[in-house]
Amino acid sequence: MQIGIIGLGKMGFNLALNLKRNGYEVIANDVNADFVSKIGHEGIQTADSISELCQKLTDRKVIWLMVPAGKIVDSVITDLLPFLQKNDIVIDGGNSNYKDSKRRYSQLKELGFDFLDCGTSGGTSGALDGACTMIGGDAAVFEYVAQVFKNISVENGCLYTGESGSGHFTKMVHNGIEYGMMQSIAEGFEVFEHSEYDIDFEKTAKLFNHGSVVRGWLMELTQSAFSKDPKLGSIKGIMHSSGEGKWTLETALDLGVPTPVIAMSIMMRYRSQMQDTFSGKVVAALRNEFGGHAVEKND
Amino acid sequence: MQIGIIGLGKMGFNLALNLKRNGYEVIANDVNADFVSKIGHEGIQTADSISELCQKLTDRKVIWLMVPAGKIVDSVITDLLPFLQKNDIVIDGGNSNYKDSKRRYSQLKELGFDFLDCGTSGGTSGALDGACTMIGGDAAVFEYVAQVFKNISVENGCLYTGESGSGHFTKMVHNGIEYGMMQSIAEGFEVFEHSEYDIDFEKTAKLFNHGSVVRGWLMELTQSAFSKDPKLGSIKGIMHSSGEGKWTLETALDLGVPTPVIAMSIMMRYRSQMQDTFSGKVVAALRNEFGGHAVEKND
Amino acid sequence: MQIGIIGLGKMGFNLALNLKRNGYEVIANDVNADFVSKIGHEGIQTADSISELCQKLTDRKVIWLMVPAGKIVDSVITDLLPFLQKNDIVIDGGNSNYKDSKRRYSQLKELGFDFLDCGTSGGTSGALDGACTMIGGDAAVFEYVAQVFKNISVENGCLYTGESGSGHFTKMVHNGIEYGMMQSIAEGFEVFEHSEYDIDFEKTAKLFNHGSVVRGWLMELTQSAFSKDPKLGSIKGIMHSSGEGKWTLETALDLGVPTPVIAMSIMMRYRSQMQDTFSGKVVAALRNEFGGHAVEKND
Amino acid sequence: MQIGIIGLGKMGFNLALNLKRNGYEVIANDVNADFVSKIGHEGIQTADSISELCQKLTDRKVIWLMVPAGKIVDSVITDLLPFLQKNDIVIDGGNSNYKDSKRRYSQLKELGFDFLDCGTSGGTSGALDGACTMIGGDAAVFEYVAQVFKNISVENGCLYTGESGSGHFTKMVHNGIEYGMMQSIAEGFEVFEHSEYDIDFEKTAKLFNHGSVVRGWLMELTQSAFSKDPKLGSIKGIMHSSGEGKWTLETALDLGVPTPVIAMSIMMRYRSQMQDTFSGKVVAALRNEFGGHAVEKND
Repeated sequence: MQIGIIGLGKMGFNLALNLKRNGYEVIANDVNADFVSKIGHEGIQTADSISELCQKLTDRKVIWLMVPAGKIVDSVITDLLPFLQKNDIVIDGGNSNYKDSKRRYSQLKELGFDFLDCGTSGGTSGALDGACTMIGGDAAVFEYVAQVFKNISVENGCLYTGESGSGHFTKMVHNGIEYGMMQSIAEGFEVFEHSEYDIDFEKTAKLFNHGSVVRGWLMELTQSAFSKDPKLGSIKGIMHSSGEGKWTLETALDLGVPTPVIAMSIMMRYRSQMQDTFSGKVVAALRNEFGGHAVEKND
Repeated sequence: MQIGIIGLGKMGFNLALNLKRNGYEVIANDVNADFVSKIGHEGIQTADSISELCQKLTDRKVIWLMVPAGKIVDSVITDLLPFLQKNDIVIDGGNSNYKDSKRRYSQLKELGFDFLDCGTSGGTSGALDGACTMIGGDAAVFEYVAQVFKNISVENGCLYTGESGSGHFTKMVHNGIEYGMMQSIAEGFEVFEHSEYDIDFEKTAKLFNHGSVVRGWLMELTQSAFSKDPKLGSIKGIMHSSGEGKWTLETALDLGVPTPVIAMSIMMRYRSQMQDTFSGKVVAALRNEFGGHAVEKND
Repeated sequence: MQIGIIGLGKMGFNLALNLKRNGYEVIANDVNADFVSKIGHEGIQTADSISELCQKLTDRKVIWLMVPAGKIVDSVITDLLPFLQKNDIVIDGGNSNYKDSKRRYSQLKELGFDFLDCGTSGGTSGALDGACTMIGGDAAVFEYVAQVFKNISVENGCLYTGESGSGHFTKMVHNGIEYGMMQSIAEGFEVFEHSEYDIDFEKTAKLFNHGSVVRGWLMELTQSAFSKDPKLGSIKGIMHSSGEGKWTLETALDLGVPTPVIAMSIMMRYRSQMQDTFSGKVVAALRNEFGGHAVEKND
Repeated sequence: MQIGIIGLGKMGFNLALNLKRNGYEVIANDVNADFVSKIGHEGIQTADSISELCQKLTDRKVIWLMVPAGKIVDSVITDLLPFLQKNDIVIDGGNSNYKDSKRRYSQLKELGFDFLDCGTSGGTSGALDGACTMIGGDAAVFEYVAQVFKNISVENGCLYTGESGSGHFTKMVHNGIEYGMMQSIAEGFEVFEHSEYDIDFEKTAKLFNHGSVVRGWLMELTQSAFSKDPKLGSIKGIMHSSGEGKWTLETALDLGVPTPVIAMSIMMRYRSQMQDTFSGKVVAALRNEFGGHAVEKND
């Protein structure tokens, strides 16, 4: 089977290799010519443009998008439209908002095309060696490509989650959980770091991965990180985020579901991106106003 | 009536003036000779030592402590003991932990002395012009000095709260509420500060003090702070704390009461005292581990 | 000056009386005929329909909407459109989302009509006796009706906040602050309620209103509530919300501003609307899975 | 080697079997005669009293306590004292507070006895088949029994964490992390439960355990729980706790470390134990006071 893949970043590149290793004929494209050239050296067919990619795909086309969420997905789909034929299948394997996926599904459906939203977990190593995929869309369309998802995923690591949007929805909530878990681990190690004991972070993370209740992949990655930099002295504690945590919180707010831990995980990320806060200034100023408590002055 | 006052910091100094203005014969002492000298210039009797202070007090002694919470209170009480006579009254007007106050009450009671715990709110201006006082201890002892509390407080600003410890307990919870209210105001103004609109902070705080639901003294102080420094550009957002918020949270934890807002107010204060966080490093490192997301490096 | 008012609920009704008392010729309308009839008995002119209301307004029309936020505002505006003339002024005095207000401003502007968004604080008593108003829109349009806002507001309780949307934006953030302040007070009194002391809630709230740092209108309302029901035994702790707190949080998320206290205030409201939680079941089940800890069974 | 074990609850019972399987001569005791009798049927030597247990242990005694944290540990140690000889080793394998462990270490040390604090993770199944153990105390004492810990733990699941208290400290923080992780998972599944999609909880948890970022033992237990009760309809969402989460938070407060996620995990547990809240009543009453919003009445 032929599969077109558009987007050769960290995830898309590895996914293309994964597909190839599983025997698929991959045709790969990216706006960045360097990425295209690089994957060409891996023995994968390339296309310099979306039109070329589509021309190389025969029969019912299967086109996998692995591009950044947001307007780029819409733009690529717009570029694809002239080349699509009835029942061609567009798979969005990126971290799109599930509401966008529902909209895109409807737009393509109306034109006679098929659309699947595929949440992909497991990081870059998973994309290469066996991902975790959760797929929403029409059941019959999923069935047509089910074997592809099974091949690129670890055993039992592929699930048809239901109607359109449910794949990205499931992935979004997965990431919300992930935010909370990461912050939990991080808070624990910060308590270690400030404690009276001389805790060896790497050894402790390793211990936690052997028989403890909190063992799991994130703790293994914690161990790995400490093995490279025992006190993380080389890096800054600035936590960026790519949106799914925020969407999970926004969805929870719409549904009336309290998610305090996910909310706080996000807030601490935002806070970490600030050097100083206006809210802190306000509180410091108020303490000075009523109690004469000293404020710290900027130079 | 004579009143001895020990501790002439921001609060004690003003309280001494307040007592004098209300016709009391004040004898003032502090470990800092400068403070003693300074209050002497205000026409208040001074004592260079605790023994001198006690010697100047005749009849049933009333000794008001306005010293920092913690071991200093115990130390001053220890110094007082040799000079106390049956039913002399020690009032702790500082921000002591109510558990310490209960303990001190019992210790003094056993020796035949009386003890009142007095929470004092209203800031330094309140201490001078009319405070808000909440007093715990024996009812009969309170009655003996009730007029003193009434005189130094604003009208209706004095309450006998019940048995020993309840005065400081009430003040502790008051401060917990205060932490949450201050953080609420601060978060709101931080949203203003980041918004698409060019909000005038002083005018908005002033508006909020005229007819809005959130009007109150803290909003008046907010207005005052912005009137002096329109964008608080001169100060750092480092929020210190003196302990009552933490005690409120610890008490809530012991009582099994969820107090998320008070908890978060404290956490954000702690966070503001850190330049960078270890928890942030852990999350940043984990994102790098699974997703290859770039970390920001220390120089 | 004539003012048309559409929407005679708790806020609109009182506002109409407020306007009349200030000498304005009010023409009042509501979809509910009972409300119209009721305000007629207060000596206010009524209109049975929007067309009638518009016909009774001569010159440059000033029409004040005081209807529930959301689609009703759009629907009323649509009904108004056939009767508007160039530069007629529509004021939305409800709790609309500022983004909707910006959109409505643009829609009306394009058609030659003027629009002001007016956040109104102070509750139902404020609407009657003196509100707190914050108004966004074109400065020249505000000037035309500035005296109206001044008249219905308490002294200094009226502010032109800037361009379109800023009035509702300022009110939204005001409500976010209000959520946090209310939750702060509520948590404090819950600690009192569970404490070892027999705290008199009404007396304590009254005390806090006399000289303390946390004095303000919300604490006065707390005192008032306890004066009617000393332990609030007659009511359930179910906290509803009308949206501004959620919008504040959503806006903060979009701006990247951490607002943990406002977030937790909302979460606790959501939680209060649930009898039991699915998250609680998951944690209880997990504790049973790993530690054999007993779960409580449903009957 | 002989090992005395006191406390045959869920954890102690399994641990005794684990020790026996590893070739140790176990002498078991519990205040509950049924437990003693039951473990006797497993072919383990029993002792009806602490004195009997001590008499059966020859040479340098190794006595493992697996009793509930708190006063019971002190009481058992007091009962042991008359029978201990120089350098006998008491191991506390329960969930004691690390501060208590430090105190007990000093008390026993002064009397010439040795003490190790051992945090034990892995739940009841781990106690039986391979636990995760973290041990604090004198290094030389640890070395004397290191092989025991290695035998009862999974491979690499045993760590000497340093000076006295560090074993229980590490376990305490482990549990704090666990609280946060569990709440993260729980919040995610509550979002699923309220969503527009018909998410199959068991299948989704299973999927998450195959290749996703959030895979780990807690997610496996989540899968297991849903496999037994697909929507957890039979149980109530009441979340109890045994103290380590609270201690982690209290320690973080003492250290000045913000741990918002751990804090919120605890707060939601407390909240789940309440049918209604006083704080909710206060907020509902306040909304009624200023806005006339209806309150829900108790019958």
